[in-house]
Amino acid sequence: MEKQQTIERMDKLMRRLFPICRSITGEGARQTLRILSEEIPLELHEVRSGTKAFDWVVPREWNIRDAYIKGPDGQKIVDFQKNNLHVMSYSAPVSAKMTLAELRPHLYSLPDQPDLVPYRTSYYDEGWGFCLSHKVLQALPEGEYEAVIDSELKDGSLTYGEYYLPGTTKDEILFSAYVCHPSMANDNLSGVVLAAFLARELAALPRRRYSYRFLFAPETIGALVWLSQNERHAKRVKHGLVMTCVGDAGAFTYKKSRQGAAEIDRAVMQVLRDSGQEHNLVDFYPYGSDERQYCSPGFDLPVGCFMRTSYGKFPQYHTSADDLSFVNGQNIQGTMEKYLEVIALLEKNRRYRNLYPKGEPMLGRRGLYKKPGGAIEHPREGIGKLWVLNQSDGTKSLLTIAERSGLKFSEIAAAAEDLLEAKLIKVINS
Amino acid sequence: MEKQQTIERMDKLMRRLFPICRSITGEGARQTLRILSEEIPLELHEVRSGTKAFDWVVPREWNIRDAYIKGPDGQKIVDFQKNNLHVMSYSAPVSAKMTLAELRPHLYSLPDQPDLVPYRTSYYDEGWGFCLSHKVLQALPEGEYEAVIDSELKDGSLTYGEYYLPGTTKDEILFSAYVCHPSMANDNLSGVVLAAFLARELAALPRRRYSYRFLFAPETIGALVWLSQNERHAKRVKHGLVMTCVGDAGAFTYKKSRQGAAEIDRAVMQVLRDSGQEHNLVDFYPYGSDERQYCSPGFDLPVGCFMRTSYGKFPQYHTSADDLSFVNGQNIQGTMEKYLEVIALLEKNRRYRNLYPKGEPMLGRRGLYKKPGGAIEHPREGIGKLWVLNQSDGTKSLLTIAERSGLKFSEIAAAAEDLLEAKLIKVINS
Amino acid sequence: MEKQQTIERMDKLMRRLFPICRSITGEGARQTLRILSEEIPLELHEVRSGTKAFDWVVPREWNIRDAYIKGPDGQKIVDFQKNNLHVMSYSAPVSAKMTLAELRPHLYSLPDQPDLVPYRTSYYDEGWGFCLSHKVLQALPEGEYEAVIDSELKDGSLTYGEYYLPGTTKDEILFSAYVCHPSMANDNLSGVVLAAFLARELAALPRRRYSYRFLFAPETIGALVWLSQNERHAKRVKHGLVMTCVGDAGAFTYKKSRQGAAEIDRAVMQVLRDSGQEHNLVDFYPYGSDERQYCSPGFDLPVGCFMRTSYGKFPQYHTSADDLSFVNGQNIQGTMEKYLEVIALLEKNRRYRNLYPKGEPMLGRRGLYKKPGGAIEHPREGIGKLWVLNQSDGTKSLLTIAERSGLKFSEIAAAAEDLLEAKLIKVINS
Repeated sequence: MEKQQTIERMDKLMRRLFPICRSITGEGARQTLRILSEEIPLELHEVRSGTKAFDWVVPREWNIRDAYIKGPDGQKIVDFQKNNLHVMSYSAPVSAKMTLAELRPHLYSLPDQPDLVPYRTSYYDEGWGFCLSHKVLQALPEGEYEAVIDSELKDGSLTYGEYYLPGTTKDEILFSAYVCHPSMANDNLSGVVLAAFLARELAALPRRRYSYRFLFAPETIGALVWLSQNERHAKRVKHGLVMTCVGDAGAFTYKKSRQGAAEIDRAVMQVLRDSGQEHNLVDFYPYGSDERQYCSPGFDLPVGCFMRTSYGKFPQYHTSADDLSFVNGQNIQGTMEKYLEVIALLEKNRRYRNLYPKGEPMLGRRGLYKKPGGAIEHPREGIGKLWVLNQSDGTKSLLTIAERSGLKFSEIAAAAEDLLEAKLIKVINS
Repeated sequence: MEKQQTIERMDKLMRRLFPICRSITGEGARQTLRILSEEIPLELHEVRSGTKAFDWVVPREWNIRDAYIKGPDGQKIVDFQKNNLHVMSYSAPVSAKMTLAELRPHLYSLPDQPDLVPYRTSYYDEGWGFCLSHKVLQALPEGEYEAVIDSELKDGSLTYGEYYLPGTTKDEILFSAYVCHPSMANDNLSGVVLAAFLARELAALPRRRYSYRFLFAPETIGALVWLSQNERHAKRVKHGLVMTCVGDAGAFTYKKSRQGAAEIDRAVMQVLRDSGQEHNLVDFYPYGSDERQYCSPGFDLPVGCFMRTSYGKFPQYHTSADDLSFVNGQNIQGTMEKYLEVIALLEKNRRYRNLYPKGEPMLGRRGLYKKPGGAIEHPREGIGKLWVLNQSDGTKSLLTIAERSGLKFSEIAAAAEDLLEAKLIKVINS
Repeated sequence: MEKQQTIERMDKLMRRLFPICRSITGEGARQTLRILSEEIPLELHEVRSGTKAFDWVVPREWNIRDAYIKGPDGQKIVDFQKNNLHVMSYSAPVSAKMTLAELRPHLYSLPDQPDLVPYRTSYYDEGWGFCLSHKVLQALPEGEYEAVIDSELKDGSLTYGEYYLPGTTKDEILFSAYVCHPSMANDNLSGVVLAAFLARELAALPRRRYSYRFLFAPETIGALVWLSQNERHAKRVKHGLVMTCVGDAGAFTYKKSRQGAAEIDRAVMQVLRDSGQEHNLVDFYPYGSDERQYCSPGFDLPVGCFMRTSYGKFPQYHTSADDLSFVNGQNIQGTMEKYLEVIALLEKNRRYRNLYPKGEPMLGRRGLYKKPGGAIEHPREGIGKLWVLNQSDGTKSLLTIAERSGLKFSEIAAAAEDLLEAKLIKVINS
């Protein structure tokens, strides 16, 4: 697909998905997954309310039709139809009249960002609430209010989607994007859209060493459900990335896995270093997104989180300002290029053995070293070959060699290809 | 004991001990230990002259009644009765008349600090000498002098005191303070007074996991005697600190044990880091105080030296200016608070195993996580629990988790207590 | 030999060797080795053309009598008799008339250094060429040129010289200097001359723990030939240095071995640190000089490269400006002093065991510690002894102790000598 065409299709998909009121269960997530299925052949799973997932239980399914607060003058002050953030997610149904004092404990606003509507949830905690701008909140007059939430909590199911791309090995790379957030663009429509388009790109590859798994599931409970239903399978995950906050214009941020120096960590860091662009590296910490579950001590999977501006670090985070004006397909497409570089690195990151380990093999005779003797050595290609030969004792991957040499991974990989073709090195299977 | 009361009692004990002429043997040290026995029930040991301690031998006992130099005009130029630093410690008896030229080799002064009287010793090296200010030395006229040291060197014993506080295990924490220095306040009355009051605090604790040993002995030979008499016992010392120079107003200094990253080293460093105060960390070096002996290669005990301004680094060091105007109970009490924090850390520093290692256990259901969903996570309490759960695979102590998380040890320890109570983790016995 | 006499002899030898047209085979190298044999009893080896050396083959022998280009006016534009750099080394014979356009592909110059003649080679690549200043090149008029190279390529042999100095063990220290470069002074007459004089110094030593091997061979192919003929022997090389670019006035540069923290690496770094002089440390990279071969993965010998200004880093590198005005005996002699320090360090770098490991042995009684008690400890000698005693548990070399203590190696070594004499430590044989 042409780059420009990709960007336009990303934007279009974003616009289509944005208005849907998603939550960790219910029709919103289901509808989102159905739309994604038009892009990639998702396998949809329905997991019934009450199903155990380790220490957790799949909650009742939540659906909502409408919600509003009417003020003393009978006008709607907040209206779910205008912005689904106005209702605290998973709010129990309510329809009651009350004084402002009685209503207040159910109202959430952001005093420091008085124009924005916050995003709040009451998962696993029966309750109800409305979110509104602090400006509106402060202007509320005394009087009688009517609060209506036309929602439903009942036994049903949690829905998640999976897309599996087999490779020549069963070793998997996991990409995980959560689909439970309502109308917010960077968190996390951007990750969902990136996952769909990245999957398409990988499906088009003629050959994949790794198998790839794309998981579209609600945050936390979705990852827990998947882990609990794939407990023995999880060890096949050799590398993984949580996809979130990938559509703003900020510099890239990589939050390392709990392991800290796993191959995925080093791969992303190498790609960022090779880019020459400023970027942020963050050590693992056990709060944030689904890496919390993947990196729990009983799994300790090598899963990092590759974002643009990190969740919690942009002022629009978890507010109505995280909208389509903040995020666009061009940024997501730029992120996809970096993800593809990481994947290319992992696919190529083999260990080799120099078949001529005693002294250097003679490169000139094989046409691999063309510099006239005596000139100062700087053609990067030649130097890459010498690095690969010198380090390839069968224990060091190309990534390790790139790290030690300071050369770009692409240079090291190209050198290895030439040497392999010249039968100077052989791949180590492991 | 109230803090203010403690300070006053420390000051009072300092004033009482200061004038005594201590040395590595003799009545001065013995009298000091008897006074300390009024604070804590010391067990006193007498070790006879000639007793071997590894490569060393307990020397003859030294006692002194009086000493002075009379000048050509019959006036006393230096007088032991005014300041016991005037006599080089362990000086052999002398009573002789001599010229200034004959006297000079026996006189010690500090040309760079001309107003101060230095502290000098002639242990293990029969000799005699006087210490005086350089100003007085330079003003001495030619003429006949009379030098008198009414001392005695005879077979006797070396005295040291021990106080042992049993805990629920026989693993010991050793606190070692040397009691051989004459009238100097920071070096080392401050350490002696801190040891006595710290022992009282620990004795009052309802429960101690560790056993505690307080050693009051002369520097070097005392530590050697104790080690030689407890050679097989020494391995019970799991952590230790040499207590010296703890009463000035300077920033804290920690000199690491020879091991460098022993638990005691990391514990003191964590307490200092958590304090937010400026402090100095110093790598081990094999000169200084009794850590020289504890950290000799045949023992290599994890014993560091936790001071305020390090010995040798304050201008008053080993001079008459190291007096009661330089040191006070308030400073010593402040040091004691840090020692108590170190002890609290070591007592609490267990390894735990997360009993719900697959994914996170659900904290909200147990009332352990109260934040409304969607708000940016920053309540330190909640984050501490996530860190302890994430890292508690049975191999990492709470100190390790504090180091990795950047949180304070107290926050990590409080989180662990909550999780233990909720039966989400269990302690690992080792 | 007196220092001034050494410098003069170095200068004399440089002047004598400079004009010779050396290459990787042929009379030039042979004549150079014969002259060196007047200084040290070199064993000369002749290795026949066609002999295999791993992936390489000893090439035909190259000799040259004359070469020039005559311009359209019949004048010689470049003349081998004036500077042997004018002929690309290993040029095949040629004698032909041609246009400037036909000649140009055979001409090499340096546009950025228009006054200098470059050094170029066409090893293993039949061809011919001339090197000349860019100024001359640019002034060449159109017209007919005559290019003559009176050279010969025929079966013969490659010549290298070896000098072996036995020590009390068969463990070897290898010094390798390449002798294939024509008239250039720093690269590498300086290394050749240093090697010869260093060998003389070592031969004069009354005792050597290590055996020493000096290798004078052509770069790359010479090292490969030596390695292939000494394949099983190579593991005796415990430390090694490639000697090149040691005669300019620049600061010292040490390029580490592939191992990176081998004893030779730490030894050179310690000597440089102890010198207090500015210097450059460079991590290993697999291009440069003969360390490429010694540090190939099949050998991975601990061989570094101890230079003044690194090859490739001075503007005269591989040009006619690398002449006797750039290099002198005084600089080479200064380099030799550093090499001798490295050798002294390696010879003395033993591990010891403290025979009194429990507590400190009493140094005063043995006259090893003379400071009056109570004075601040700073006599470096005493502190050195305490470091050696404290660290000598049989696993730590004197170099390790110097590194940890921050003291100079000479201080640590002197301390160890005193302790050995006093029977407080014993050497560990390994």
